[in-house]
Formats: sequence, C-alpha cells, structure tokens
Amino acid sequence: MESMLQRVVRQAAEAGLTQNITLATNASQLDIITNQLGEKVSIVTEPVRRNTFPAIALAASYLSMKKHCSDDEVVVIMPCDPYTEAEYFHVIGRMVRCVEARVADLVLMGITPTYPSAKYGYVVPRPNVQHMETQAVDYYDVARFTEKPTVAVAEELLKENAFWNGGVFAFRLGYMMDIVRRYFCAESFEETRARYDEFPKISFDYEVAEKAQSVAVVPFVGEWKDLGTWNTLTDELSQHAIGNAVIGPKCENTHVINELQHPIFVDGLKDVVVAACPDGILVCAKKETENIKAYVEPLATRPMYEERRWGNYRVLDDTRYPDGSHSLTKSITLMPGKHISYQRHHCRTEVWTIVGGEGVLVLNGQVRSVHPGDVVSIPQETWHAIRANTQLTFIEVQFCSHEQGGQLTEEDIERTEWDWNGRS
Amino acid sequence: MESMLQRVVRQAAEAGLTQNITLATNASQLDIITNQLGEKVSIVTEPVRRNTFPAIALAASYLSMKKHCSDDEVVVIMPCDPYTEAEYFHVIGRMVRCVEARVADLVLMGITPTYPSAKYGYVVPRPNVQHMETQAVDYYDVARFTEKPTVAVAEELLKENAFWNGGVFAFRLGYMMDIVRRYFCAESFEETRARYDEFPKISFDYEVAEKAQSVAVVPFVGEWKDLGTWNTLTDELSQHAIGNAVIGPKCENTHVINELQHPIFVDGLKDVVVAACPDGILVCAKKETENIKAYVEPLATRPMYEERRWGNYRVLDDTRYPDGSHSLTKSITLMPGKHISYQRHHCRTEVWTIVGGEGVLVLNGQVRSVHPGDVVSIPQETWHAIRANTQLTFIEVQFCSHEQGGQLTEEDIERTEWDWNGRS
Repeated sequence: MESMLQRVVRQAAEAGLTQNITLATNASQLDIITNQLGEKVSIVTEPVRRNTFPAIALAASYLSMKKHCSDDEVVVIMPCDPYTEAEYFHVIGRMVRCVEARVADLVLMGITPTYPSAKYGYVVPRPNVQHMETQAVDYYDVARFTEKPTVAVAEELLKENAFWNGGVFAFRLGYMMDIVRRYFCAESFEETRARYDEFPKISFDYEVAEKAQSVAVVPFVGEWKDLGTWNTLTDELSQHAIGNAVIGPKCENTHVINELQHPIFVDGLKDVVVAACPDGILVCAKKETENIKAYVEPLATRPMYEERRWGNYRVLDDTRYPDGSHSLTKSITLMPGKHISYQRHHCRTEVWTIVGGEGVLVLNGQVRSVHPGDVVSIPQETWHAIRANTQLTFIEVQFCSHEQGGQLTEEDIERTEWDWNGRS
Repeated sequence: MESMLQRVVRQAAEAGLTQNITLATNASQLDIITNQLGEKVSIVTEPVRRNTFPAIALAASYLSMKKHCSDDEVVVIMPCDPYTEAEYFHVIGRMVRCVEARVADLVLMGITPTYPSAKYGYVVPRPNVQHMETQAVDYYDVARFTEKPTVAVAEELLKENAFWNGGVFAFRLGYMMDIVRRYFCAESFEETRARYDEFPKISFDYEVAEKAQSVAVVPFVGEWKDLGTWNTLTDELSQHAIGNAVIGPKCENTHVINELQHPIFVDGLKDVVVAACPDGILVCAKKETENIKAYVEPLATRPMYEERRWGNYRVLDDTRYPDGSHSLTKSITLMPGKHISYQRHHCRTEVWTIVGGEGVLVLNGQVRSVHPGDVVSIPQETWHAIRANTQLTFIEVQFCSHEQGGQLTEEDIERTEWDWNGRS
C-alpha cells in the first residue's frame, strides 16, 4: 500500500525531476508526513490554515531565507493529490525549461480535458501554439482564466481549446519573493512565519495567476485524476462500501467509507457519499462535496484520531461530569521500537491498561517491562515514558478532577529526555 | 420528559381502562422498561425475536397459564408507539364491550384516515354501520384487509370508507388460546416459552386477523401518529437536527438524530433520515425506512449501549490484537443508590477508573469508598461489586489475554449476593 503522497514523491523522483522536494502543509500533518517519507524531507508548516497563496508565500520564503536558494532558481508548485502518470512529470520538466528560457513569469500546466466538467477551473490559451525551438517545448500564452463554469459554458471553452487548471505552477523564486514583499519585508523565515496572519486569505490562482502580466501554459495529455474532493475520489474507488458498511438495494452511485467501529447501513440514496471517521461523519450529495469546508470547520473540536511519529491514537470518549471533572479515554498504539517522550502532567492523572504487545515502561526513573493485562497508574507530577518492543496498544484514561482544574488540555505536558540506550 | 411507553401507559390508566397491563417485549428491553414503569408491571419477554403472532401467543399463554385469567376475559392488544389522544382509549373501551357482547370473535380499531397514505394497512368495512343499542357502540363488520396499497389504490379505498389498521385488537382469551393450541398444547407458560421457536414467524394480521371468520371494526376519529418508523417519527420532530449535527443549506426535508460524540454534517440530501447511535449509523431515504430490518439485523454485533436497572453502559472500543488478546472498553454509569451485583470473572481482568461521583466498592469482601481519580484493578477470580452514592461513572477496561482464551463474553460472570446493609 502506497499513500497518495508517497506515490507522487516516488513519481517525481523516477522522472528525474529532483530529489529536493519541500512539502508545504499544516502543522497537524507533520508527523504523518514524516512517517510516510522519512526524516530527511523538508517540511514547511503553516501555523494556521489560511489559503494557497499564504502557504506558497511561506514555502517560497523558506527556500529563499532558510535554504538560501537564489532568486533565479526555478520553483515548481504542485498539489500532492493528483492520480497521474509519468508523462505529467515530464511536462513539469518542460515547464521548468520555459521559465528558464523566460518565455513567461508564470508557467502553468494545462490538463487536456476529457469532458466538459463543471468541477474544475479552466485556462483559456491564445489561439496560436508557440514553439520553443531550443528546448523542443510547445506552449501557449494564456488569454484568461475561468473558474468552475456551467457544463454549457465548459462546452464552449472546449471549443476554444481551453485546459483544466491542474494547480501546477512554475516560476523563478525571485518573481514570487517580489510578490511576498508587497505584504511585508521579513528579515528571516522565522519572522515570515510569525507574521503569517498578515498574508490575505486568498488562493494563489486569484492573487498571482490571474493578476500575472505574462503567463504561459504547457499542455499535458494523459491520465489525470483529481483525488482532492470526495466527488472525484469516489470515481476512483473500486468498491462502493469500505469498512463496516452495507449498501441497500435502492442505492445508486453511492459510496460509503467507514473508519468507525459502528456499522453503517444506507439505502434509497442516489449520488451520495458517506464518510465516517473519528473526527466526524459526512453525508453529502457528491456534487456538493466541494463546498463543505465552511460548514465543517466549526464542527471540528479536538482531533479524534492522529498519526504520530511513534504510532497513532484514537479518542474513544471525551466527557465532562456533573461534579466538574473531565475524562478523556484513548486507545494508543506504538510501533515496534518507537517510544513516547519522557513527560509529566501537572493537572491530570493517567491510567494505562496494556492490552496488546510488549514494552518497556519508565516511571519516575524506574524501568520495568510491561505485558498485556498490566495496569499503570500515573499520578500527576509523575515522570513517565513507554517504548514498544512489539506493536504495543494500551487504553489510556486521562482524568482531571474539579480540584485539578476540571479541564484536560494537550498543553499540560512537560517533556524531558530519557536515555533509552544508556539507562534501560 | 416522558417516553412513548410511559405516555401510553399513563393514558390507558387515565382512561380508566385498567391498571392491569402486561408488556410483551424482547428480553433485551426488560431493564429499560422496568426503569421506566417500575418493578410492579407484568412483562412477558420473547426469548428471540420472531414476529407479532408468536409474541401475542406467548403473552396470551402468560395471562392464561401464569396469571390464570379465564377464557372469557377480554384481552386488548395494542402497540406501545402511537402518539394519540384520550378518545383512542375510549374507543378501546367500546371494543371491549363489543367482544363482551360477542358481536365478533375479533374486534379491531379502525383509524379514520386523514389522507390516502401508502404507509399503512387498510381495513375495508361492509357498507352498513351496526349499532349495538345496549352499549351505545357503533361498529362495522369487516369485509377485507389490504396491506400498504399504492396511493391510487388508497384513494379508492377511502371512497369505500376504509380505515387504517392501527394494530389494536380485542378478543376473548379463550379464542386466542384455541389458536395457540393448534401449534402445541403446553402444560405451562414455561413450556410455551421454551418451545417458542415452534410458532411460525408470521404477523398477527396474517395469522389471525385475515383468517378470522367474524371480525368487527370500531372507528376512531382523532389525532393518531404512528411513531414506529423513521418516516412517520421524523414528521413529529420539531427540529431537523438533534445532537451534534449540522444540516447544510442544500438539504430538503432531511432529519439528523445523533447520539454519538462524533459530529455529523449533511448536505445536498432530500427526504433523508440520518440516525446515529452506538449500535450503528443509518442513512436512508425516508420512504425506504420500513424495509431496513432484513439488512440491518446482520450488522448488529454485540449491544453498544444498554440501559440497565442500575444505570447504563456504552461500549467505547472493542478490539482484538495481533497477539490474540481481546479488550473491551466501556463507560459505565450507576444511578445514585444503585449497585451492580457481586460478581467475578474466570477469563478476564477488569480495570476501573472512577471519573465522576462517589461510591462504595467491595473487593473480595473488603469494603472501601471510591472517589474520582481512583483506580481499581480486578484480577480474574476476584469478587467485586460497586454501589453509587451519587451518580457514579467509571471507565472499565476488560481484558482477556490469549492465555485466558482471547475471547471476552457476557457469559463469563458468576454472581452471588452481597448484603449492602449488613456489611458495608
């Protein structure tokens, strides 16, 4: 099994494009990306989610000020979720050559449409193809952009040989840094990141592409599937039900993806996606799935499932009681050889019941092995860490009484080092 | 707040019908009914779910053989889920007088239809109303039954003055017992219950009502809502979203009832009900909700939430591990003054973390008080019980290792008595 991200990074490497990929992502994705790609990959994390322009501005600042890339270096921005083939990466190579040859400030990839979709943005080229003799690259100058048209308008756009905008952009780093400095001139990458909320919440398409004086588009013909919305993702699923789910006989074109233990039954639905995971349950007409962000964001509370460098956890229960106490129950799994940091909490007790695997526990400097069935009681202020020998799962009950503040927080943690090799 | 069942029992008592109600239900509902109606109510539990004929046959056997009611006693069968008014119970009184006057073997209530519904069964009367002078009761002889017709057929039925079949039946006990004895002649109620699976899986309507030689119907005119299907229940809800749920702007006539902690977002749906509880998640076109039983039954595993005499529990997690062990995590709440029985398990350990309330714990005969934050480790073979002083919640982690059998079962329990007054 290979993730979307692992596949794209592998394909870029196989195309000989670069080994030098920087990932721009939200801080919450850091551990899962490190797990998938290893420790060596460069990751720029946005402190809060804004939009694609601020994220790309931050990544460009990182390359310029942290990695000290020159202004003439060509940067390619691409999404991590296209399902595509090798030719796509060869087109990226051509886009880079266009920027190097200064045919335009900004060069886009144009996906050759296979049908008049209303799901995508369109790039409308000027009529005549340009040929760059020295590089053997064909490109078009861009006349205009059109965001998600109706199907009727899309049919007209196809007659103009318009392309889908696949969100792949190439430019010289200096070009982007000039735009970044319109907002503020930072002395360092750290300053840029600290002032991240001074960037407007706007997409790269609106802020840069549509305002650019000189834009070219290099066509790509081939397999390309956008896995970025439920609507397009479900098109690629080979099964209608994934996980503990049953689809009734009166359903049409309906998909259920269930990561919960609770069974799901659906019937009488048409063109609907049901997606259930610990963070929430989505039931949505496929054509509406692009518009859910604004509604779903207020529903998010604390993360209910997270992948970490050491493994993952799932929140089983989060309850406040009439006497003012608060408990949080998690199932925590550590991968073999991994450990959680040596830590203590000031305002909570924890109880661990080992339910699977073998490990080594440190409790206030005392080391012992733990086995399934063992119970570990961790009063507040007690230093503790645990390492998995085999894949290790325990149920953790966090408890904060009214007297302790009645409020469990992720911030109530003090960490220090434990020398696993030297002392255990 | 009053449950459906509490309301119906109160209304029957207010109408002066009887204080002598026997409830026929599934064994799994026993504790929740006792909690709602108290210890004094008669309850007949079917050992497995079959259908309405076997359930009514069992209840009739209970009245005949356990309560020693005479064959001439009039029995009224009614569902527990109509939302209706006092007049309904007065009509039941008239039905009883019809049976007493022997106008028919079986007397039904006919709900006067308010629209040509395709959701209900219909009772078609003979044209001329009968008037029982002595009792001042009007009734009709029944010509035939029609199950859930199309709307067009229902319109024709309304022209024939047909009634909805509300599932309310009255008969002499001896009439029903004659039918019961066609299957087997039991010596006792206990024998009948033990041989319950010899009754066919068939509804009372098909097995009794449609075959009866002499059937009368007494009309009811008034408010009557069937809360027995999601389709009819959601008609009566004042809010579209109950629990942690948001309904998007592109929904029409869509209801969400969410008893889970996970948030639910729905959009782009029309005439759909989403119902989520620990036992499972239903997403269904309202018009299909009557037909889900056959699909949903195979999805049920163990109960994920149960109300008991002492309180309730919720299953938070149920997982088997690669090393062959099994863990089950529950949140258990005891009502003030209630206790769980003194018990031990042969094949599992339990760990309780008290998270809310105060209580008294017994562990191998030793009594102590417990408070939030306390941890109780219960090895296998250890006798244990707990009583709540205030509402008491604890997180229970059940654990069964590969060596202990690797299979947690509800049957692994040995109970004895603990004298809470004498010894604690």
